[in-house]
Amino acid sequence: MASADGPPVLGRSDHGTARRATLSLIGQPLSVSARRGSVVESTHRVHALVVDAEGDVVRSWGDTGWLTVLRSAAKPLQTLPLVADGAADHFGFSVEEIALCCGSHNSEEEHLRTVRAMLAKAGISESQLVCGPHAPLLRKRERELADAGIPLTPIMSNCSGKHAGMLALAAFHGWPLEGYERPDHPVQCRIRREVLDWTQCDPGSIREGVDGCGVPTFAVPLAAAAGAMARLASAARDGGTPGRVVGAMVRYPFMVAGSERLCTCLMREERDRLLAKVGAEGVYVAADLGRRLGVALKVEDGARRAGPPALLAVLERTGILSRGTMRALARFSAPQLVNTRGEGVGRLVVVE
Amino acid sequence: MASADGPPVLGRSDHGTARRATLSLIGQPLSVSARRGSVVESTHRVHALVVDAEGDVVRSWGDTGWLTVLRSAAKPLQTLPLVADGAADHFGFSVEEIALCCGSHNSEEEHLRTVRAMLAKAGISESQLVCGPHAPLLRKRERELADAGIPLTPIMSNCSGKHAGMLALAAFHGWPLEGYERPDHPVQCRIRREVLDWTQCDPGSIREGVDGCGVPTFAVPLAAAAGAMARLASAARDGGTPGRVVGAMVRYPFMVAGSERLCTCLMREERDRLLAKVGAEGVYVAADLGRRLGVALKVEDGARRAGPPALLAVLERTGILSRGTMRALARFSAPQLVNTRGEGVGRLVVVE
Repeated sequence: MASADGPPVLGRSDHGTARRATLSLIGQPLSVSARRGSVVESTHRVHALVVDAEGDVVRSWGDTGWLTVLRSAAKPLQTLPLVADGAADHFGFSVEEIALCCGSHNSEEEHLRTVRAMLAKAGISESQLVCGPHAPLLRKRERELADAGIPLTPIMSNCSGKHAGMLALAAFHGWPLEGYERPDHPVQCRIRREVLDWTQCDPGSIREGVDGCGVPTFAVPLAAAAGAMARLASAARDGGTPGRVVGAMVRYPFMVAGSERLCTCLMREERDRLLAKVGAEGVYVAADLGRRLGVALKVEDGARRAGPPALLAVLERTGILSRGTMRALARFSAPQLVNTRGEGVGRLVVVE
Repeated sequence: MASADGPPVLGRSDHGTARRATLSLIGQPLSVSARRGSVVESTHRVHALVVDAEGDVVRSWGDTGWLTVLRSAAKPLQTLPLVADGAADHFGFSVEEIALCCGSHNSEEEHLRTVRAMLAKAGISESQLVCGPHAPLLRKRERELADAGIPLTPIMSNCSGKHAGMLALAAFHGWPLEGYERPDHPVQCRIRREVLDWTQCDPGSIREGVDGCGVPTFAVPLAAAAGAMARLASAARDGGTPGRVVGAMVRYPFMVAGSERLCTCLMREERDRLLAKVGAEGVYVAADLGRRLGVALKVEDGARRAGPPALLAVLERTGILSRGTMRALARFSAPQLVNTRGEGVGRLVVVE
């Protein structure tokens, strides 16, 4: 049920800190249900909000102060220093390559070729990537690599574009490449400052963990993530570094994810109008570039499957997506659940 | 927080039907949190209860009336007709083979050999199994099969023991083997009656869907699942069919799951004292055979990862498990979360 159906409670978030207490809207979370036959088998609770460039909440579900580990949803912010400091231009990185730094790619041929091109331009060896390898996010690609007997290496991390960008930033500044993943390395300190700026969090209020690929990841109240996206959309209209990073993502959406992935399909459908970026454990951020709206959501239990239906529901209910786009992306908004025999046995549905 | 900390609310469950309204205890769910660094990144809500043989609730968390699709947690009940009707004896099935019918196995060599032996005894061809193939539940075994280039076939469904038992039941009764998975086939009608008996649900109140392997799966209030386990534990003390099925599971726990799986490890540690069976989408049932207690839990969002910590917490908090067993199974009760670099980046913890 949307918070619009009952007045949200204005309360002090549990996740506030002594230095910056956050006033949060607390309403009914959005619910994504897994139906099997006529039964609701499992249910995911989703916290989400849409804010405008002035920081006002347009609409919210659940707890807008929910402390959210951004994971890969931070990649657009993590890429800004590469462009702002001049490293991208110094090494002659293409627009596609900048998009790939912001991406969680499928390890498709084009992704791997692009990472290798970046490393070559910056004079960095593939063996200097410290991200851990993992099976590609696209199941079809996983089988393709397995059938061809190609072993998984660090370049096949969905984060290898981001890592190539981090190494290039270190090389450009003359910082050591060794240890670029550590929280106290100049690359990570530079990125942390950028994330603090855009989320308007102060150094004492941000919390950190180690991401799936080994670099620091940042936890901020959900509203701070949405606010960062609204500010990024706003700043991008004036060009400059935000304009180049946002422009790269919306112009080369394949680099941001890949085949059969929501971020890519959404940005293709809404060409130049919408930014979308997934993060692990059920996170999405998005921005309506025309209306300068920022969007952030967190699936409370971290389920990857609940993210796409929830994001599309939030974008539809706030008028960001047209009916045409919703129809084109129906396979993401109410995906069928298929058993081992290939039978449709249920469906994920958003319940309000 | 346990319901014991505040009086549970006695209410009419949303999941009740016109024919059988269920009075449910509704308290605070058990919570399994995924911590990353110092942050709670994601949280799973778990409904759970323990009941005695008289049907009285010993302890509960969340909503005891939660409509729960039993999935593979129903396998012990689904195996009872095979023994009760005389099919198991007719075909000379061993105790291990009966255990495997109740299992969700890892497709390890011993599991596959045992399914093949059952099929041979009943004169059934492997091609008559209709369960869909899938990657083994044990990651190590998945890699082993992939490295050896062994293609996945229906016998590698974790449910192939159950399917072999269903086919044997059909063959014994002279029912057609073709279509044994369909809801109106005599095998499934026979099994449905057994599930209704033990869960004390009436035909109008039970709900059904199609399971991951293609056969019907049953949805019952969580309390009915726990009650069935308490009654099964009670009946098993008198021997007979329940005694044989329960005895097979606790004597051959490897057949019920396999290497590095909680059901197997738990039944090995608590030899002859405890029954445990997992189901997909975050379900567990268990029984304390000495005290004749039945246990059932459902992770609201269906996350597989939250099940083991939740089950162990429920068993520990109700005095079913000793401290020694809890120590021996610490890797299941608070498992480390590891990133793609093999670094420990967090932990699953049960919060009360």
